[in-house]
Amino acid sequence: MSHPAVHPVEAPPLSIDYGGGDAIPPRVRIKDIQGMPGTPGGLTLRLCQSACAILALWVMATTSDFPSVTAFCYLVAAASLQVIWSLLAAVADIYALLVKRSFRNCRALSLFTAGDGIFSTLTFAAASAAAGITVLIDNDLGVCSQNHCVDFETATGMAFMAWFASLPSFLLNFWSLASGRT
Amino acid sequence: MSHPAVHPVEAPPLSIDYGGGDAIPPRVRIKDIQGMPGTPGGLTLRLCQSACAILALWVMATTSDFPSVTAFCYLVAAASLQVIWSLLAAVADIYALLVKRSFRNCRALSLFTAGDGIFSTLTFAAASAAAGITVLIDNDLGVCSQNHCVDFETATGMAFMAWFASLPSFLLNFWSLASGRT
Repeated sequence: MSHPAVHPVEAPPLSIDYGGGDAIPPRVRIKDIQGMPGTPGGLTLRLCQSACAILALWVMATTSDFPSVTAFCYLVAAASLQVIWSLLAAVADIYALLVKRSFRNCRALSLFTAGDGIFSTLTFAAASAAAGITVLIDNDLGVCSQNHCVDFETATGMAFMAWFASLPSFLLNFWSLASGRT
Repeated sequence: MSHPAVHPVEAPPLSIDYGGGDAIPPRVRIKDIQGMPGTPGGLTLRLCQSACAILALWVMATTSDFPSVTAFCYLVAAASLQVIWSLLAAVADIYALLVKRSFRNCRALSLFTAGDGIFSTLTFAAASAAAGITVLIDNDLGVCSQNHCVDFETATGMAFMAWFASLPSFLLNFWSLASGRT
């Protein structure tokens, strides 16, 4: 009666309560947040970014006198980079949707986050600089009769829209990277 | 010998392996990242932001002709807001350091993240707009002899420095918020 006995006890499965009361086991992949790479929302954001940046680029590049102002040249350059980046990311999204896989590894997410951060910052800086010049020409100097104010303002607005569309991509990717949903 | 016996077994403590091989129990507060609110690094960042924004504000406000350009007025306004925000956050940091507690609750972190995001974006937009105007005056038009180009450029540079100092605050707070280190 006194000899030692071993009673193997199965370890209870680790469970995480996400607040809803239903404990679900870990390692379950959390549902894709719309807007992340590889989701239809993400693809929509990419297409919006591309469309706005293409419009900004096109409207600005068709004015005859944009090369005389450095900020407008910078807007054209930044919008071009944004178009290239957004289209590349859109192609990656389409591929991910076609093969029904999402970008969940840390390296891909870091790449998307860094790219979104850099290109959206460039676009925002270009839009702000162009807005400063446009307001100077229109409100401060009042020389719109000699300049293509409407074109400049449209291009600036489109660049701001492109930045506004790329902000959710950056924030969502950064959030996913930080929360470890890879 | 056949009657049922209950062998109460103590549940093993849940442990998380953070990759280093040493399993540490959960609920241990992860060490403060320098730069977060309530850390000496965070206070240093706040003081840098305040100093740069005050310099930008002071240099721009002492030029006689800044009100004639909307972008320069906007720089003064944005730098003022940045100074107020950074000084308030610095006071909160000093209080947290004095009582040796850090801001770890979700609401405080959200507030700091939102504030940093908004005010750093405003400062960056103002700096970009002022840079656009400065480059226009200096390089495109070449009318520096009639303007305070050096002052405008110094103020713009300081505004960019203020943005650059507030970027780590925003990113670290956002990272902490997302990774749930509250």
